[in-house]
Amino acid sequence: MRFATLPDGTRDGRLHLVSRDNARCIPAEGVQTLLALIEDWDAQAPALQAQYAALNAGGGSAFDPTTALAPLPRTWQWLDGSAYDSHGELMQKVFGLDPNPKGRPLMYQGMSDRFYGPYACIPLPSTDDGIDFEGEFGVICDAVPMGSDAREAASHIRLLVQINDWSLRAIAPIEMKTGFGWVQAKPACSVAPVAVTPDELGPAWRDARIDLPLEVTLNGETFGRAEGHAMSYGFDELVAHAARTRDLVAGTIIGSGTVSNANYREIGSSCIAERRAIEILDDSAPRTPYLSFGDRVAMECRSREGAPVFGRLDQIVIQGGRP
Amino acid sequence: MRFATLPDGTRDGRLHLVSRDNARCIPAEGVQTLLALIEDWDAQAPALQAQYAALNAGGGSAFDPTTALAPLPRTWQWLDGSAYDSHGELMQKVFGLDPNPKGRPLMYQGMSDRFYGPYACIPLPSTDDGIDFEGEFGVICDAVPMGSDAREAASHIRLLVQINDWSLRAIAPIEMKTGFGWVQAKPACSVAPVAVTPDELGPAWRDARIDLPLEVTLNGETFGRAEGHAMSYGFDELVAHAARTRDLVAGTIIGSGTVSNANYREIGSSCIAERRAIEILDDSAPRTPYLSFGDRVAMECRSREGAPVFGRLDQIVIQGGRP
Repeated sequence: MRFATLPDGTRDGRLHLVSRDNARCIPAEGVQTLLALIEDWDAQAPALQAQYAALNAGGGSAFDPTTALAPLPRTWQWLDGSAYDSHGELMQKVFGLDPNPKGRPLMYQGMSDRFYGPYACIPLPSTDDGIDFEGEFGVICDAVPMGSDAREAASHIRLLVQINDWSLRAIAPIEMKTGFGWVQAKPACSVAPVAVTPDELGPAWRDARIDLPLEVTLNGETFGRAEGHAMSYGFDELVAHAARTRDLVAGTIIGSGTVSNANYREIGSSCIAERRAIEILDDSAPRTPYLSFGDRVAMECRSREGAPVFGRLDQIVIQGGRP
Repeated sequence: MRFATLPDGTRDGRLHLVSRDNARCIPAEGVQTLLALIEDWDAQAPALQAQYAALNAGGGSAFDPTTALAPLPRTWQWLDGSAYDSHGELMQKVFGLDPNPKGRPLMYQGMSDRFYGPYACIPLPSTDDGIDFEGEFGVICDAVPMGSDAREAASHIRLLVQINDWSLRAIAPIEMKTGFGWVQAKPACSVAPVAVTPDELGPAWRDARIDLPLEVTLNGETFGRAEGHAMSYGFDELVAHAARTRDLVAGTIIGSGTVSNANYREIGSSCIAERRAIEILDDSAPRTPYLSFGDRVAMECRSREGAPVFGRLDQIVIQGGRP
C-alpha cells in the first residue's frame, strides 16, 4: 500500500491511499490519520488493502504531491541512525571526531513534533550555521516492546519513507563534543510525500534494507546517486537497538542516516559535508560551500525500472526565525 | 494555578485543577487535557483562573496523587539541560568526559512519548545497565518562535514541574563517546503529580530558577537535599538555547538537569552517579551501588514553610522488557 497525508486544516492532516503509480489518491476509509493507522495497524490494514486494490483498478482523484504534508506531519518519536560506514568515515575526517563504537549502531534522538512536507520551504536562521541536507531512508514502526530482537523488530516495520535530515554543520561538532548529541544542529526534517509498505518494493526490500538508489540534486545538478543497500546495520537491527531499554511507541520513525557508498568519487554524496570531506582528502581544502538562502535541494528514489516510489522532495531554503 | 492529570482511559488523561494545598481537585472546565491547554494557554487560562479561585474557596473532591498520571503523560518534545555546574564537574570525574562547552548550555533531546506517573513502577531490563535516578526541575512552554531571546522565552514558560530522569550509567558513557547523545541510556522519565504556574512559587521563582530544595530519598533514607537555584543558566536561557534553530512546539518540556550544589558533601546528591564520583574523590573507589530491582526512590520539593508544591515522586524499579 501507499499512503500520503493531505492538508485538511488539522495538524495531522488527512490520510489518503495513493495508487501504485503515485498518480491518483483517495481518502482512507475508516481511519483519519497515518498516526491513527499505525497505532492500530493490524485491525485497519485489511480493509485498506481492499480499498487500495480498488484504487489501483481505477478511480480516485489526481494526486498532487506539491500540496502534500509529510506522511506523518508529527509523531511521538524520531530516532536517526548512521548506518552507512563510508559516510561515517568521511564525517570523521571532516569533523575530527571518531564516533564509531564497534558492534553498536549509531543513533540519536531528534525532534519529531514537525516534519516538513515535500515542497515546503525550509526556514533557517542563518547561513553561518552551515546549512546542509542529508538524504536518507527511514521506517515507521508500530509499537515495539522493549527488548525485542531484530527478528521481532522487523515484524513491526510497517512503512518505508524517504527523508531529508536538514543539518547545521557549524553547530554539529560543538554539540557532538559535549556527548549530549544534537539539538541546535538538527532542526526539523522533511519527508517525501508517499510512505509505502515494504512489499511495494518487491525484491528491493532486502535484508531489511532499501536496495534502490537515492538521487540528490542541488539547484538542478546531480549531487549524488548512492545506493541504499550498503547499510552496516539493517533497519531491523536499528529498531532493535532503539528498543533495547524502552518500549517504542507506535509511530516511531527510525532513520538510516545519510545514504553513502564507498565508491563516493563515482556516485557522489547525499550531503554537502561528505563532498567537502572528499575535497579535503583530494585537494586539502573544501571547495563546495554549504547552502545559501534560495538554494534548491531535490531528492528522489525510483525503482530500477524508473517507477516512482516515495515521490520527490523538492525544497528551497529560506531565511526564518527572529532576527 | 495547579494542575494534575487523572486517568480516564485515554493516553492523555483528564486535566484537573488542584487546590493550593494539593488536597482537592476538580476536572478543568472547557479543556480536556494539559496538552490542549498549553496549546491554547492565553485563551483558556482566564476561565481556569476563576475555577481555581473557586476550588481554593472549597469544593472539589479529594486529590489522590497515587492515582495520578504525569501532568503531561506524553508530549511532543522533551529537551533536558544540565545546568548545575557541580553535577557536571562530578560527572566528568566519574566518566572521564569533558562535555562542558564554555558559554553554551548543555542540552539533549530525550524521549517524550511517555512520562511515568508519580507512583508508577519503573520497568527496566537489567541492573547490569547501572540504573540511576536524576532529580530535577523542568518547565513546560507554549509555542516559542525560533530565535526568541531569553526575555521572550521567559514569557512562554507556563508551568513548572519536578522530574526524575531515569538514567542507565553503564550505557551513558558509550553513547556519549559517539557524540550522538543518549538513546538507550535515557529511558522514559517520571514527573511529579502537580504542575504549577510560576506564580504559585511566589519569590521562590527567581531569576527563572526554582529557589527551593529537592529532597531525594532512597529506600527511605535521605540521599540529597540540593537547592534548585544554583543553575548556571536559568530556564529562560535554556528555552532560548533550544529555540535557536527551531520553533518550539507548545508542550515542550525543558529540564534543568540533575539538581546539584557545590557543597555536595553536606547536602548530598540527586543521583547515585554523583555520590559515586564523590566517593572516588574521597576514597579512590565508589561504594554506593546503582539500583537493584525493588529499590524505592522518592523525591519531593516543598516550600520553605513546608507546603507541598509538585507533590511526591515515589517509585519502585522493577524488571521489565523481554528476557
